[in-house]
Amino acid sequence: MAIVVLDFSMSLDGFVAGPNVSAKLPMGEDGMRLHEWLFAAEPNAVDAEAGRMMRETTGAVVLGRRTFDVGVEEWNDTPFPVPCFVVTHNPLEERIEKSGTFTFVNDLEHALHRAKAAAGEKHVRVMGVEVARQSLEAGFVDEIGIQLVPVLLGDGLRLFENLGTEHIELERESVLESPQVTHLRFRVVQER
Amino acid sequence: MAIVVLDFSMSLDGFVAGPNVSAKLPMGEDGMRLHEWLFAAEPNAVDAEAGRMMRETTGAVVLGRRTFDVGVEEWNDTPFPVPCFVVTHNPLEERIEKSGTFTFVNDLEHALHRAKAAAGEKHVRVMGVEVARQSLEAGFVDEIGIQLVPVLLGDGLRLFENLGTEHIELERESVLESPQVTHLRFRVVQER
Repeated sequence: MAIVVLDFSMSLDGFVAGPNVSAKLPMGEDGMRLHEWLFAAEPNAVDAEAGRMMRETTGAVVLGRRTFDVGVEEWNDTPFPVPCFVVTHNPLEERIEKSGTFTFVNDLEHALHRAKAAAGEKHVRVMGVEVARQSLEAGFVDEIGIQLVPVLLGDGLRLFENLGTEHIELERESVLESPQVTHLRFRVVQER
Repeated sequence: MAIVVLDFSMSLDGFVAGPNVSAKLPMGEDGMRLHEWLFAAEPNAVDAEAGRMMRETTGAVVLGRRTFDVGVEEWNDTPFPVPCFVVTHNPLEERIEKSGTFTFVNDLEHALHRAKAAAGEKHVRVMGVEVARQSLEAGFVDEIGIQLVPVLLGDGLRLFENLGTEHIELERESVLESPQVTHLRFRVVQER
């Protein structure tokens, strides 16, 4: 059965995008600092392997409508070459892109259900802060990957906010160091 | 010359204490989850070494008045066996404790100056969220240690908040894994 995973590049102060995210600035102001490791001219072996694993293990994507609106021109395709399910109250017609499809679904649980069916043995990747938070809070997330970037941004969009006050216990699965980031993976051990 | 260091046990969602910190609950509600690794009945070698290094390298402490008020009964001494400088607008008389002294100083920069002189070749350790933030924002901090605890607390006191919007670039110095936490050390490379 497909597991549900998140991966975010996060500053040490917890931001996964700069302030004022828009279609022109999908990562917010100065937020590209967080993805420098991804777009290095010559990525080192650890980062390259992390990127490769992310692509290879992704069997379906669930994303929010805001992430779709902000990202679709940038990607000029689906974000991964797999079926993508967009959670939205204002569904569009299904879109067939070069390497995948966007299907619009108006409920998170339903989107995850369809994504799991589509992912087969691979993972369902949740993209977008709002949908990631909702998935965490509802106990739908099995694994969290954080690429910890050694910077304090000071402002922006936090991933881990408004999660309610109950603890979510994690278990560290792995730590990998590259010159630019620290790759941390956690398994969610205590779902709500 | 003594360097200025911070060490905080922090949840993956950025909290260094639970909500409602008080003298009765110095770590806030449920905040002791963050210090479980410190008080394990049988600490593992990595955690024990981290604790030992923290004690051995500390030559002086700068702390806030709130941290003093909340901690002094708990410690029943100074927090480390070294000269401690409490930043406060309402100074008390110097207090001589079992293994160190509390000196009350009404300005952070002055406190750091005196602490550096007292620390000699060892480090000045800044304790307390408010004073740590002020020190970071003012560019006084040389090294940040984070003991990353695999839990999402959901609520509490953040260390990295209200730091202004200029980036503070860090460089990772070390990563050490213990079963309970991930010990991360960063050098501040871009002071303000």
